[in-house]
Amino acid sequence: MELHKESDISCSSAAEHYLIELMNEIKIFSPATVANVSCGFDVMGFCLDNVGDEMVIRKIDKKGIYITKVENFDLPFETELNVAGVSALAMYEAIDVDFGFEIEIYKNIKPGSGIGSSAASAVGSVFGMNELIGRPFNKTQLTEFAMKGEALASKCEHADNLAPALFGGFTLVKSIAPLKILQIPSPEDLYATIIHPQIEVKTSESRAILPNEVPLNKAITQWANLGSLIHALHTSDYDLIQDSLNDVVVEPYRSQLIPLFNEVKDVSLKAGALGAGISGSGPSIFTLSKGLEQANKVKEAMQSVYETSEIDFDIHVSKINTQGVKIIG
Amino acid sequence: MELHKESDISCSSAAEHYLIELMNEIKIFSPATVANVSCGFDVMGFCLDNVGDEMVIRKIDKKGIYITKVENFDLPFETELNVAGVSALAMYEAIDVDFGFEIEIYKNIKPGSGIGSSAASAVGSVFGMNELIGRPFNKTQLTEFAMKGEALASKCEHADNLAPALFGGFTLVKSIAPLKILQIPSPEDLYATIIHPQIEVKTSESRAILPNEVPLNKAITQWANLGSLIHALHTSDYDLIQDSLNDVVVEPYRSQLIPLFNEVKDVSLKAGALGAGISGSGPSIFTLSKGLEQANKVKEAMQSVYETSEIDFDIHVSKINTQGVKIIG
Repeated sequence: MELHKESDISCSSAAEHYLIELMNEIKIFSPATVANVSCGFDVMGFCLDNVGDEMVIRKIDKKGIYITKVENFDLPFETELNVAGVSALAMYEAIDVDFGFEIEIYKNIKPGSGIGSSAASAVGSVFGMNELIGRPFNKTQLTEFAMKGEALASKCEHADNLAPALFGGFTLVKSIAPLKILQIPSPEDLYATIIHPQIEVKTSESRAILPNEVPLNKAITQWANLGSLIHALHTSDYDLIQDSLNDVVVEPYRSQLIPLFNEVKDVSLKAGALGAGISGSGPSIFTLSKGLEQANKVKEAMQSVYETSEIDFDIHVSKINTQGVKIIG
Repeated sequence: MELHKESDISCSSAAEHYLIELMNEIKIFSPATVANVSCGFDVMGFCLDNVGDEMVIRKIDKKGIYITKVENFDLPFETELNVAGVSALAMYEAIDVDFGFEIEIYKNIKPGSGIGSSAASAVGSVFGMNELIGRPFNKTQLTEFAMKGEALASKCEHADNLAPALFGGFTLVKSIAPLKILQIPSPEDLYATIIHPQIEVKTSESRAILPNEVPLNKAITQWANLGSLIHALHTSDYDLIQDSLNDVVVEPYRSQLIPLFNEVKDVSLKAGALGAGISGSGPSIFTLSKGLEQANKVKEAMQSVYETSEIDFDIHVSKINTQGVKIIG
């Protein structure tokens, strides 16, 4: 892998570099993300602001990558079995250093929730390590390392959660090989409401339920909607965002795996959401709204559905996070 | 249909309106267009600048729509059998006037060439009539009338040539019912080269060759490319335009109907074209280039292929026409 491309070096001035040289430890916030975004199956994603993991990355004298703490959830400490460890190893193999790294994970995103839990872990370790060694890698390169971690969790290399976690805002993964990530503008006043019903949807099951082929006319509708969504995000056209957030290809299948999905979608739209869909492969359901007040109104509507059921849930309201993963200490 | 919407009235000031009242005859240029644009099958299109029909539309005392002249090509004079006549009739039925219209068609776009010949006819009559009666209809409404004419030619109502002919530039037909057309920005320095090999490809054949279903992974690639193309047009990113102009769904089938398609594509890309694909349902092949000089270089390459064959051809180089159909006298 090519290091120190011109564009990367410019990211860190000499002074900044000096500070980073002194830093041996960094605390970062690695955000939750919503992949697919209705019409953008497998390619689109966006980044949440106040939902995410915290991680501490520490330079140590001993060579290697070590997971030294995992809080809140029961995740493996063995580097090769831990998503954050695997992505860190991928990056570690690409650098030639005589020191190692410790990783502490303060996990807040529930694994299996469908809001990019593994992506947050995979991104956090490589972002933090990159900061500690003077940012030799750009964000696309970091995504490539993180894909190795993501593959451990989901059995295939994809980047639709990784890209928004690293770049922030809305992203379109144009292609995987070569990896090409586009940053799509995010309208100022856009908020997401995400509900996570506490049920298990196995990724294998949510993949298996998809057909191998789709009717051409439905595919056309889908790409018309995605093209329209990209245009709407560029022009901050909320009405058009609303009109574009339709998934005629995947949602009809996967929604069957999420109890009360149609009811949640229905009440969300009635409450004024611009759109509602499955977050990633579920079971979380996301909505987008114009303005915080509206997003909170939609939150009330969404939770009212699961409140009358026996299904527990978490619910979040978040501005679109246009920064992505960031240093917090 | 609702007339005189606020946005329409603002188009014609009182003075302009007075002038239009005095006008009984108008000469217009109705441009050729390229539909599909590789990754945007059935939804995208763009407008050419110097290739198109001229039409004269004249108010007459006698009620009704009359085709009084057709030059260059043998097209029907019966209003109900003429594309321009059918779209004119659709509009005529929506207005209540005690006069009629004569239509003269100076056809320069060869029917069946795949660069929107019928769309130019369908658009020209309704655009001209609308001008003569003070623009009661907006361009989306004109597209709806023109779709009736287009349906006569292609047996189904679609708007992927009509929209760019009316609006100019790049358009995305987001949906047909309701009709929703998006105007996508066009980079300043973008030129098209179009070659029309003089062979017949029947629309019915080019439709029949398409599969009813497409593999999901190919559909994903297609919508990633279309989303990327929309982003590239918004950001005037020529490299990304180049990277997005791929059609993995339709071109592999339809290109079989166009002799030497692969050769033309190959030499165009080698000569520096950003992309090459089938224009509409063919047989014309379009390329896009950055700059006029490059577009001319690509022209040389494209025509060299058919020059060594026994197939006659027309070839055009055109800037993207951001205005669309226009008054020329």
